[in-house]
Order: sequence, then structure tokens, then C-alpha cells
Amino acid sequence: MTVSVVGLDADDTLWHSESYFVVTEERFRALLAPWVAAEDANGRLLERERANLRIFGYGAKGFTLSMIETALEVSDGALPTSAVQQLIDWGKELLSHPVELLDGVRETLDTLRGDYRLALITKGDLFHQESKVAESGLADYFERVEIVSEKSPATYRRVLCELGVAPGEFVMVGNSLRSDILPAVEIGADAVYIPYGFTWGHENVETTDHQVTWQQITTLSELPAVLRRWR
Amino acid sequence: MTVSVVGLDADDTLWHSESYFVVTEERFRALLAPWVAAEDANGRLLERERANLRIFGYGAKGFTLSMIETALEVSDGALPTSAVQQLIDWGKELLSHPVELLDGVRETLDTLRGDYRLALITKGDLFHQESKVAESGLADYFERVEIVSEKSPATYRRVLCELGVAPGEFVMVGNSLRSDILPAVEIGADAVYIPYGFTWGHENVETTDHQVTWQQITTLSELPAVLRRWR
Repeated sequence: MTVSVVGLDADDTLWHSESYFVVTEERFRALLAPWVAAEDANGRLLERERANLRIFGYGAKGFTLSMIETALEVSDGALPTSAVQQLIDWGKELLSHPVELLDGVRETLDTLRGDYRLALITKGDLFHQESKVAESGLADYFERVEIVSEKSPATYRRVLCELGVAPGEFVMVGNSLRSDILPAVEIGADAVYIPYGFTWGHENVETTDHQVTWQQITTLSELPAVLRRWR
Repeated sequence: MTVSVVGLDADDTLWHSESYFVVTEERFRALLAPWVAAEDANGRLLERERANLRIFGYGAKGFTLSMIETALEVSDGALPTSAVQQLIDWGKELLSHPVELLDGVRETLDTLRGDYRLALITKGDLFHQESKVAESGLADYFERVEIVSEKSPATYRRVLCELGVAPGEFVMVGNSLRSDILPAVEIGADAVYIPYGFTWGHENVETTDHQVTWQQITTLSELPAVLRRWR
């Protein structure tokens, strides 16, 4: 196959994101320690996030509202109001922390852009993702920046149509099997999986379909060599 | 001039939106009556929304978080936690109320689509706006649906570039002088202003620039005749 367009996920592929959520969830567990065991707090939060997903969609604002709801639930309303403000402040921190690129990202994009058209394809909150793209200083590497509400096969088909490229000429690169790898492979594209240290519970999937294959690497820096080998 | 593309705003241009916020703000004032005079509650909320805009962007989730923060502030933390859950529930109602089209919208789009390419250009929360577009049943009228984080001159330039149309062939139609009219006129496009019964405080602008002109009508149904007259 001949790849002409490389699609790259952003959060936890180009820059750190989940690690900030992990820190926030640690603080959240500590805040709720009077009412719920640390090992149960995350489960309750994930359950609440999933129930809210069809109303809130993805992103840190919905996450913050879900933290507040979970805290009200597990404390049976006994949570002090100062804790509510604390949760909002943590949400604001999530929405405004500096963008910290993963190792080797800029060098890899410099290498890739000589040989491929690059597209950034990220899901989540439009305003927050745009802010991060701007702050990352990476916008100029990308022919298109697509911020989508969900990474489904239909989403990838639409984006490839906008790019004017067939699935066989496209490879998607990211850290989420659910969002970056499986739907891209489903429409006939290739995919390169780069696991990140942490994965949000909702993004965990198990696939038993042995027909579905993808390449796995450990850092983005290995990507150019993988693509060269495919030529 | 010959218009070839008509850009239409969505909230309060195609379907009702602000009226739901107005109802929510009424409830909000009643909830906070023990701590703040009704006539001051909205001002405090708007102030908080504006301060949060650079972190939250537009949309009902940010609005909900701003309501909670304002309530904590004005009550000096004395708000019962049940009221916090109440505010979240109102936010969820805002995010999931049925889409109610304004009068004559479908008929007008039926008329327009014979003569013009149509684009829906709306700002706010990606997930919520996509849900409303889907639920409205109007998606098929539009060649493009652009959900943007801010309606600036640069945004309109980018959208017109995607549409492959010059500003002189484009007219923007909407209910916000700040978002729909002034930035479109600034890039050299035409604009048709259709005031809605309510306008969010942040969208109110005064312009003293008498060079800036636009057409004003009272309902979308008048739009086809206006455009015909321009031919």
C-alpha cells in the first residue's frame, strides 16, 4: 500500500492529556475519602461519566460536572459547598494547563511532512481542542485539523472524503483502540497504535476479531520508519 | 451582487434556544432569592460567564458551571448542595430539550435551496450543536454544517474558503449582530439580521460605524424575497 495521508490523534498522541485527568482523579478520591473507599470512587465516577456521555459528550467540562454529581451522590449531599468550588477549580485547571508535547513529536512531524499530507483528528470539546492546537504551535504541520464529537467509522469516512483520499491511502495513528484504531481499520484504512501510559476506562476495548490487525509501536518517533517499510 | 451561498445561523435563527436560557435564568433568580435581589442575579451571572468564557467557551455546559459558581459566590457558600444538583439538572434540560423550529423555517429552506447553496454556520458546543442539527431534521438542506468556537472575521474567511466562494457572493443570516452580522460585513459579505425575542447579554453590541450596513427583516420567511430583490 502507499500511504499519502497520515491522520494523527492529539490528546496522548501528540501531547499529554490523560495524565492530568489521572492527577485530578487522585485528588477527587482524596476529597471523597470521608464517604467512599478510594478503590470505589473511580468506578462511581466512570459510571456517572458514561451515563452523562449522551448529554455532555466528551471533554473536561462534562467531566467536571460528572465529578460534582458523583461527589453529591456518594456523600448523599453532605459534601461542603467549598468542595464543589474545589471541583470546578480542578476542572478549570484541566482546561487551562499548558500543552506539553510528548517526546520527539516536533522532530517526527518535521520528518513526516516531507513525505505525507498530515491531518490532525481529535475528539472532544471544540473550544478546548482548538485552544490546545493553537498553543501547541503544531497547527502549521497539518493540512486539516478536524475536531469531531465521536470517532466512528462514519466520521473517518467523512474526513477522508474532505481530504479526497481513499481508505487504502490513509493511516490513522493514535493511542486509543476504540477511537483511533478499530474504526479506521473498519473502513479499510491502516492504523498504528501507540499506547500511552494511562487510558481512560471508557476507551478500553477488547477485540476478539483476529481479522482486525494494526501495527503497534512505543513512541511516535518510530512512525516514519514503519511507514517507510510499508512502501 | 449575485449571492450564490446563503449562510444561516442556527440557535434563534432556525430553532429556539435563548428562550430556554431565559426560563432557566428565571428559575436561577428564584433559587438565589434568599441571597441576591432578582435584578442583580443576572448581572452577577453574566459577569461570571464572561470571566469564564476564555476557559469554557460558549455553550450550556459552561453556562451550567457558571451558574454553580455564581450561586456559590452570592450565597457565600450557604447554598444547600441539593441546589447544586438542581442547577446541574437544569443544565441537562438545556442540553436535551427538543429542537423546536421557528415558524416557516422548513418552507423557507425549501424555497431557498432551489436557488442557492446553503451552509449552516453555528457556534457553541460541538456535541450539543451536532445533536440539535441531527434532531432538527434539517441537515440535508445544507451543503456544509460548520460548528465553530467563535464567529470572527477569520472564521468566516476560512468557511468561505472551504466553500470556494468569494465574500461578494455570500450572505450571512442570523440573529446576532456580534456573531452573524458585523464579522460577515467586515470581510465584505452581505448580511441579513433577524432579531429574536431575546438576546444573550454578551451578544449585545452597539455599532457607531455608519459605514456598516445590513438588511433587517422580522422573520426568516421574508428572506427569499429580499434575496430576489438583490438580483
